[in-house]
Amino acid sequence: MTAPDVITSLQNALVKRLVRLRTRRERELDGVIVIEGARETTRALASGVRPSLTVTCPPLYSPEALAVAHTLTGERAELSRTAFEKVSGRENPDGLLMLAPTPMPVLPDPPEQATVIVLHGLEKPGNVGAILRSADAAGAHAVLVLGRGADPYGPNVIRASQGSVFRVPTAVLTEEEAWVWLLRHGFTTVACTPDAPHAYWDAPLTGRVALLLGTEHEGLPEEWRTSRSASSLSVGIPMHAAPGGADSLNVSTAAALVLFECVRQRRSLLTQSHHPQFSSEVQP
Amino acid sequence: MTAPDVITSLQNALVKRLVRLRTRRERELDGVIVIEGARETTRALASGVRPSLTVTCPPLYSPEALAVAHTLTGERAELSRTAFEKVSGRENPDGLLMLAPTPMPVLPDPPEQATVIVLHGLEKPGNVGAILRSADAAGAHAVLVLGRGADPYGPNVIRASQGSVFRVPTAVLTEEEAWVWLLRHGFTTVACTPDAPHAYWDAPLTGRVALLLGTEHEGLPEEWRTSRSASSLSVGIPMHAAPGGADSLNVSTAAALVLFECVRQRRSLLTQSHHPQFSSEVQP
Repeated sequence: MTAPDVITSLQNALVKRLVRLRTRRERELDGVIVIEGARETTRALASGVRPSLTVTCPPLYSPEALAVAHTLTGERAELSRTAFEKVSGRENPDGLLMLAPTPMPVLPDPPEQATVIVLHGLEKPGNVGAILRSADAAGAHAVLVLGRGADPYGPNVIRASQGSVFRVPTAVLTEEEAWVWLLRHGFTTVACTPDAPHAYWDAPLTGRVALLLGTEHEGLPEEWRTSRSASSLSVGIPMHAAPGGADSLNVSTAAALVLFECVRQRRSLLTQSHHPQFSSEVQP
Repeated sequence: MTAPDVITSLQNALVKRLVRLRTRRERELDGVIVIEGARETTRALASGVRPSLTVTCPPLYSPEALAVAHTLTGERAELSRTAFEKVSGRENPDGLLMLAPTPMPVLPDPPEQATVIVLHGLEKPGNVGAILRSADAAGAHAVLVLGRGADPYGPNVIRASQGSVFRVPTAVLTEEEAWVWLLRHGFTTVACTPDAPHAYWDAPLTGRVALLLGTEHEGLPEEWRTSRSASSLSVGIPMHAAPGGADSLNVSTAAALVLFECVRQRRSLLTQSHHPQFSSEVQP
């Protein structure tokens, strides 16, 4: 027996809309994101995301989805198994999916010690998600996503980031918008490139630091490698030079290394500031 | 027209064997590994892997596969498109696949400065592959794989490692074999655990260092966290403590952070050794 309010028809308007929303363009037109799965919805809710609609399919519930579903309030729609499988982006859907307005984070004014990640054209959702997760763990201030790479609010990035995309302010900007914001707040730009002469651990990475990362294949475009700000650096990751050895690291690995070097240098600064001669707080 | 020596039957013995070899158990029984794809075969060959058989399907060749195929020598078999798609582990096969004896690296005696990675039960091939890639880039001496986690010579690890599994000696050992080897060579064991009180950058990571990594869910088992050797350490990665924030990093990210901290500390040691008072080479 199917309850009368369960949507079973694949021609139903909501079902058709959810199918449409599997493409980025349609999500952008509607100004919504799709959050699927018990883990992802839990993390989004915990980060303050307010769903406009929750779509459920009790026959498909995993134990986790069942537990989450009991806590949900707000507008809901229930789909039959066939209908839910039609709209799901997963191989094994767990019967839980939410629509929410696309986050439009206003970039908060950065504190004196702030790390920002700038992603230029990264295409692989797994890499963008992994970078967001590391940025969250390292306490990064924001992530700026430039150009038409992976949609940071696409389902695969949401999944790979384990919800970090909802915790670290993640803004999609034009290159010009990003530069204006970085310059206005006096950021040191740090281009992370394989061929940079200086190791990342030798660069001064305290204060306001913007780490610039390009695609794995092409790296950063020329105009982002050369100086446009009063203070800009290039750093590389020293690779072991074995014959036929690895010639590059995964971009998300490279990002994590430089992110946590920022953390290390700041902690070291805090420790040093107990000595008056190193303190930035002691005024003459 | 199909050339007479092209295997078209799905009942052919080679086709059946290749289908069997898609499971780890069958590969272990036969003592072979399967290397699929132009990029993977190129990297394996460059690392000295000698295929026992190359299996091709010219109608499926990508431009890269075509280029690689022209350079191959040794025994070959050609499959029809249907047969190749049947044996392939990929969604979009490029018509190139090799069988080779399972590498059984003899662990070389470590130099005075050596980093070894010990993986305990990691299950995700993507994580094992990413760790191998970082180990290669950081010049690690060897990777020891314990227990029944992901097969380090399985197709997904080969792919994710981008060939690094063939460059860094990667040995599958029992826990006891690993301990005996590490103790005999005087390694400091470094358990990488989320709850360790000391940051990895505060730990002395020079000399012979074995980094111990457990599964993402369960971490290291108790007997690997507590001291069994004269010198053992536990290190953690300081996480930003935001409400609802990231509570862990991906294990391959954690591995890269500690691996490159070993590199950083060794380079720093080299720099210091130009000062006679710090030099380890100056004899009294």
